Amino acid sequence: MILNLLLTGNELMTGDTVDSNSAMIARYMSEHGWKVRKKLTVGDDLAELIDALHLLARDCDVLLVNGGLGPTVDDLTAQALAAACGVKLSENSIAMQHLEQWCGRIGIAINAANRKQAILPDGCIIVANPVGSAVGFFMQLGKCRVICTPGVPRELDAMLGQEIMPALQRDFPNSGASVQRFTLFGIGESGLQQKISDAIPNWPADVELGFRVSFPQLELKLSTANADARNSVEKIWPHLHRIIGDCLLGQGNATLPQVLVELLRQHGKKITVAESCTGGLIASSITQIPGASAVFDAGFVTYSNAMKQTLLQVDEETLRTEGAVSENVVRAMAAGALKHSKADYAIAVSGIAGPDGGTEEKPVGTVWIAWGNAAQIKTKRLHVRFKRIDFQKYVAWAGLDLIRRDLLGITGEPSYFGNRK
Amino acid sequence: MILNLLLTGNELMTGDTVDSNSAMIARYMSEHGWKVRKKLTVGDDLAELIDALHLLARDCDVLLVNGGLGPTVDDLTAQALAAACGVKLSENSIAMQHLEQWCGRIGIAINAANRKQAILPDGCIIVANPVGSAVGFFMQLGKCRVICTPGVPRELDAMLGQEIMPALQRDFPNSGASVQRFTLFGIGESGLQQKISDAIPNWPADVELGFRVSFPQLELKLSTANADARNSVEKIWPHLHRIIGDCLLGQGNATLPQVLVELLRQHGKKITVAESCTGGLIASSITQIPGASAVFDAGFVTYSNAMKQTLLQVDEETLRTEGAVSENVVRAMAAGALKHSKADYAIAVSGIAGPDGGTEEKPVGTVWIAWGNAAQIKTKRLHVRFKRIDFQKYVAWAGLDLIRRDLLGITGEPSYFGNRK
Repeated sequence: MILNLLLTGNELMTGDTVDSNSAMIARYMSEHGWKVRKKLTVGDDLAELIDALHLLARDCDVLLVNGGLGPTVDDLTAQALAAACGVKLSENSIAMQHLEQWCGRIGIAINAANRKQAILPDGCIIVANPVGSAVGFFMQLGKCRVICTPGVPRELDAMLGQEIMPALQRDFPNSGASVQRFTLFGIGESGLQQKISDAIPNWPADVELGFRVSFPQLELKLSTANADARNSVEKIWPHLHRIIGDCLLGQGNATLPQVLVELLRQHGKKITVAESCTGGLIASSITQIPGASAVFDAGFVTYSNAMKQTLLQVDEETLRTEGAVSENVVRAMAAGALKHSKADYAIAVSGIAGPDGGTEEKPVGTVWIAWGNAAQIKTKRLHVRFKRIDFQKYVAWAGLDLIRRDLLGITGEPSYFGNRK
Repeated sequence: MILNLLLTGNELMTGDTVDSNSAMIARYMSEHGWKVRKKLTVGDDLAELIDALHLLARDCDVLLVNGGLGPTVDDLTAQALAAACGVKLSENSIAMQHLEQWCGRIGIAINAANRKQAILPDGCIIVANPVGSAVGFFMQLGKCRVICTPGVPRELDAMLGQEIMPALQRDFPNSGASVQRFTLFGIGESGLQQKISDAIPNWPADVELGFRVSFPQLELKLSTANADARNSVEKIWPHLHRIIGDCLLGQGNATLPQVLVELLRQHGKKITVAESCTGGLIASSITQIPGASAVFDAGFVTYSNAMKQTLLQVDEETLRTEGAVSENVVRAMAAGALKHSKADYAIAVSGIAGPDGGTEEKPVGTVWIAWGNAAQIKTKRLHVRFKRIDFQKYVAWAGLDLIRRDLLGITGEPSYFGNRK
């Protein structure tokens, strides 16, 4: 099945909105091995839209149109499609019913602006919108099936997952193509590529290997062109797992904070943090996860030396002689945080985020990290070569990852200890 | 001047990369009142690229091509443009010189892959790349000027700012159009639109008002079509400022944490935070700003009730009778944080981020916030109707904003007190 995309909206032409919808659509399609051939974006202009519909419908099986279904006068998709197909617009009873129910549910009256969302091309087939006021619809334009969808990402997502993908799978039985995605932390794209080339010299031709950086995580993608190729994936998987196993967070969109919160919950353990250079980011990453209160009671952001002393009882002498970015300071920070929070595990970090504050002995990017529990606190010096915000994020992830590794009993050293990042 | 965009790259078709380059280009162009008419995105396919070049060059003055200038075989822009223009490809001496200098500077040898970046269409005019290996180039295709640019955002940014925009301004003298952007917090798009319509009923026709949500901030954009329109902006500015003044963070991309860190530094004051529902996000937002150590020593993440007691001396009785999300608890959290950190100002928040934990009396979204200094701690109950992560961000921004208002001596109540969000 060949797919084209047409996106519409003035906000996409002025740079006021970054288009993330087309990436969402492409990812849904790629799960079934369908690729987008071309993607055209135009403003809210009727003549441009009609031209674009004709142009794009010419060389594809399905044309997905996104945007322009809203209640305002500059929402022109229905009008443009009616013109392109040579049919009239009239009030669609199914769309009207949806609109009445939707307005009833959120407790507002239908007005003329809403009502416009039910004025659709004659002969269109309605696509239900599980979460918003505008329905989508299918139309046939020549040999091409046109599908119109709303521009609100949440509505598009629900409509793709619940309505459009099942309909396309029914009507365009695919060749068994599929995509599997995995998230990793602690290995870079080029390093991983090299390891895979070394370990699996005869990589199967029917499995495509892809990477995507979702900083500080890496996504690994295995695309198979047909059902047979799944055998190839099964054959290479043990080799691949030997390389990525330690760094593997999970399938799909799994993030390290999600994975760690879940692991801690399974183990019935709590975690605390003592943060200097990350300034609260580790605590924030954990508490963004719903249900974090089961595993997290308290965090200490000790940015100044004085606060490391008063809140975590780091020794003044150690701070003076070894400096805030030192092994004994992070060890004492972790111990202090464990003691005050009564948590099972602690992460403590102190480093030089930059742009200022570096010295010859401890340049910008130097980090001391301590992690562990009351029985054993381990420490390590890292060098993280990213600028301030990315530096903080990478250090936070390294701390979370070290606890993940301990909980899983992973004994090998993570690659970020080798200063290879 | 009419502009079209052509973007190329397989990663843009698979959903692996969200295209932010075209928004960057559109924002550069909008500074001069130039608009993008249409934008086409295709994969790394020679025939598609040649078709796209012909199609887009037909109805614009300038066609900006982005991507496909790299060293690998799937970078096809030069080849496609040569074919579209009916010229040959050969080694360009200026591009080669750039490449030699660039490789010399970073200390690598020129190889066949790099060298490909200097094989360009005959007759093209080189556009310097201040930060990368691939030069850009101008070509004439029929009546259209085609400009090819690299896909790496940092390189595109430098090339647009330093090379392409000055050249376009010289060759397409504009009408004096310009855009001014302001960032705001504490007012919503529809509420602001209504206030402006009420206060300035005769909004000048030559000034276009625009909004963009950059959550939790709002961007306000004033676009003027010509030099005369600047007088109109001067006339409406006092009225506009009366409406937005309290919420105005700054010009351009100013963020609330940046503005607050700078204000605290100017006043020679320090801030601390006692966070429950935001879980470290307020501390993290402050410490992301370079130089934050001048204004921030410590933050307390007290997620559990027990930690509110032991770390901040919140009274056990108050917690039991009034609950963790209550006026007296946030007041005590702020007082405890001020006492232990010796900071001048404190923000304390406790609320129900959801998805669970709400009650009839205190539903999900309820927040108590305390802010102030040793002389006076103020408190307020808010209701924030966003889901977990956005909830945390909005609450963090509200806290930062209350200190900003105090430091600036703003006495009016912010709109988020009215529960209108």
